[in-house]
Amino acid sequence: MDDVVGIGLLGCGTVGGALVGLLNSEADVIAARTGMRLEVRRVAVRDLDAARRRVPTLDPDVFTTDAVAVVADPTVQVVVEVMGGVDEARSLVLAALDAHKPVVTANKALLASHGPELHAAAAAANVDLLFEAAVAGGIPLVRPLRESLLGEPIRRIMGIVNGTTNYILTRMTEEGASYDEALADAQRLGYAEADPSADVGGADAAAKAAILATLAFGVEVHLDEVHTEGIEGISASDIAFASANGQVIKLLAIAEAVGEGRVAVRVHPALVPRDHPLASVRLSFNAVFVEGDAVGQLMFYGPGAGGGPTASAVLGDLIDAAANRRQGSSARLGVLVPADLVPVDELRSGFYVEVQVADEPGVLATVAGVFGANGVSISSMVQEGHDHEASLAFVTHTALEADVQATISALDDLGSVRRVGSVIRLVGDQG
Amino acid sequence: MDDVVGIGLLGCGTVGGALVGLLNSEADVIAARTGMRLEVRRVAVRDLDAARRRVPTLDPDVFTTDAVAVVADPTVQVVVEVMGGVDEARSLVLAALDAHKPVVTANKALLASHGPELHAAAAAANVDLLFEAAVAGGIPLVRPLRESLLGEPIRRIMGIVNGTTNYILTRMTEEGASYDEALADAQRLGYAEADPSADVGGADAAAKAAILATLAFGVEVHLDEVHTEGIEGISASDIAFASANGQVIKLLAIAEAVGEGRVAVRVHPALVPRDHPLASVRLSFNAVFVEGDAVGQLMFYGPGAGGGPTASAVLGDLIDAAANRRQGSSARLGVLVPADLVPVDELRSGFYVEVQVADEPGVLATVAGVFGANGVSISSMVQEGHDHEASLAFVTHTALEADVQATISALDDLGSVRRVGSVIRLVGDQG
Repeated sequence: MDDVVGIGLLGCGTVGGALVGLLNSEADVIAARTGMRLEVRRVAVRDLDAARRRVPTLDPDVFTTDAVAVVADPTVQVVVEVMGGVDEARSLVLAALDAHKPVVTANKALLASHGPELHAAAAAANVDLLFEAAVAGGIPLVRPLRESLLGEPIRRIMGIVNGTTNYILTRMTEEGASYDEALADAQRLGYAEADPSADVGGADAAAKAAILATLAFGVEVHLDEVHTEGIEGISASDIAFASANGQVIKLLAIAEAVGEGRVAVRVHPALVPRDHPLASVRLSFNAVFVEGDAVGQLMFYGPGAGGGPTASAVLGDLIDAAANRRQGSSARLGVLVPADLVPVDELRSGFYVEVQVADEPGVLATVAGVFGANGVSISSMVQEGHDHEASLAFVTHTALEADVQATISALDDLGSVRRVGSVIRLVGDQG
Repeated sequence: MDDVVGIGLLGCGTVGGALVGLLNSEADVIAARTGMRLEVRRVAVRDLDAARRRVPTLDPDVFTTDAVAVVADPTVQVVVEVMGGVDEARSLVLAALDAHKPVVTANKALLASHGPELHAAAAAANVDLLFEAAVAGGIPLVRPLRESLLGEPIRRIMGIVNGTTNYILTRMTEEGASYDEALADAQRLGYAEADPSADVGGADAAAKAAILATLAFGVEVHLDEVHTEGIEGISASDIAFASANGQVIKLLAIAEAVGEGRVAVRVHPALVPRDHPLASVRLSFNAVFVEGDAVGQLMFYGPGAGGGPTASAVLGDLIDAAANRRQGSSARLGVLVPADLVPVDELRSGFYVEVQVADEPGVLATVAGVFGANGVSISSMVQEGHDHEASLAFVTHTALEADVQATISALDDLGSVRRVGSVIRLVGDQG
């Protein structure tokens, strides 16, 4: 006789609808492998009629607009939060945890804003708070980091965790499209929102970077603490320069161990060598590259968004939460400690720096001299002339970020420098 | 106050030694995150002196040559089997499970030969039998398949799960090396054994394919039931043909759902499109590509072997087994049912078929006619002449394997056919 577990669903859009479909189609397989039947008992939605039309397989009576009642319903034993937003989601998740009901959420903004509070509430109630779908959509990543790699000395995680920006950069790289053209295409095809700023500005990736840092290093990191740069400034000439040098430009979320117990967390475009596994991640796919002292290099690749993939990740968590609940156990993140964050100024990497100068005698020597005066060693330089201007593309050896920023300030003050263009970091043992 | 968990190690070679190192260096992190201290209490080895020299950080008294005593030792609560071999390992693992001690093993041959018996013993004792390290070395793959994707309708798994063959094929592809040259290099560099037959013949990959099928589809598959072809017959001209067609040749372990509840499990070289994620997996790295109805496409990439990576995977399992034991719970594969296996004859794919013929008028028409007579439709053909011989490279549309085999038999009987060379299947929605 199978155990029946009552599920309460908060939200029933694309992800919730796909989840209901999977729970139906896979019910027998899940029962055979786990001895459990997962039944959706209550579903909180904004628009009852629309939800009933969209998910006709559910009894119309399970839908309600009262999310608090779904959490409190005594027939609901596990709560799935796929409604999005932060404040209401936070209070509902806390209410569920306080009632000793495990919670599965796909809400990265919620976790990046209130993660420590929510994890503490889950630990206090000894129930699960699982969030596989919150980072890199359908890719099983949170569980491997949290369990498989718990004892691994992780050195660095670099992720392509935003499908919109990866789509745009892929189109720019493969077709020579401009940023504006690629963005417009992404919007037309549904890969980018009408207001794309959270994606192209890096904020979405920053929320995921904060979660990755927590998983990899057991530290509390808040979204606001993540140094964040977007891809709005990436030009076709940056992409062409990268291609000519055997590199591609990717927006990376990076969480890195720096010295004794310190952690650096940041999001920025980076030059990745073309034979690096991250370089072959195309279009809207996501991938997370993990480097550890014992394991070496790992990569997890898959769809970063979409109803089906996200529902797949939620379902894995849901089965786990239900199984743990039956056994009276729960997954833990362990004790999170506040992160000792290294400011970006103190980090080191190679840099690509593009400088527009007046095409006059002696300018190159003057500009190169500014790098040297600030302790930044130049690895290569390419000059291209246009009319009375020249574009200088410098690649530096590994340098301190603060020194490079000082170099750029000094260049900005030079009369012969028209403009300092893109400044893009190199990753993957270059420089 | 941390719980102390006693570990018994069976075998202390490269993997066991690396595991002891990790348990030392990461002890504080593991304790902070789990509240447990994992202590190696007894270690079974063949050569006491050698082991004591190799792992000087352990008390010399923990070593013994009596593996049965390690399992039976009352201070040993979790058993780690990294000794290899099948018969002795089987009886030791069964003894541990019967004594209600969780077991972590890295032994693919053991699982592929006796998996159902061992899983049943673990279930009967309600303790863990974990084996992350048995497939794809350091890549967290077993846990994601077993837990994260438990409810996912998996359609197919294709893995590069043998580093030796991938190294050889990469060298052949990137440098135009012959099979013999690449194999000799692999042997010199330690990527291939002096007797490489288990790797190049596909048996190693077949054991992993059987395990992957069990994980993905919940069915019992024995090593002997896996249709297995190796890479010994792959020639430089096959590789060149693939390159010219935008493909690479990879040895793949494939487990696939075919129709209602039926499963096909096989290992063979395959032509993979160059923009497929598996194509970019170079040298001795492993990767497993998973296709599911909800999640779409996933790939797990990393080192397939080596002391550090394997120890990393064992450590993840060990922490999990210890945590589950403390909670009185265990991970389960669910009830395994015997697989309803589809013979390779009944599978469909595109094929590359190389035929050496006498360079005479009418031969091409005769050979092409044999394909047609057997119901195999030709997608493309390239002819190259050498002296009085010609080499014909056919690529077929999707065809039934049995029809292609009948075609090859008929070609072998033709007087104008000198030899049917390589026959390589296409994967990845080609043909």
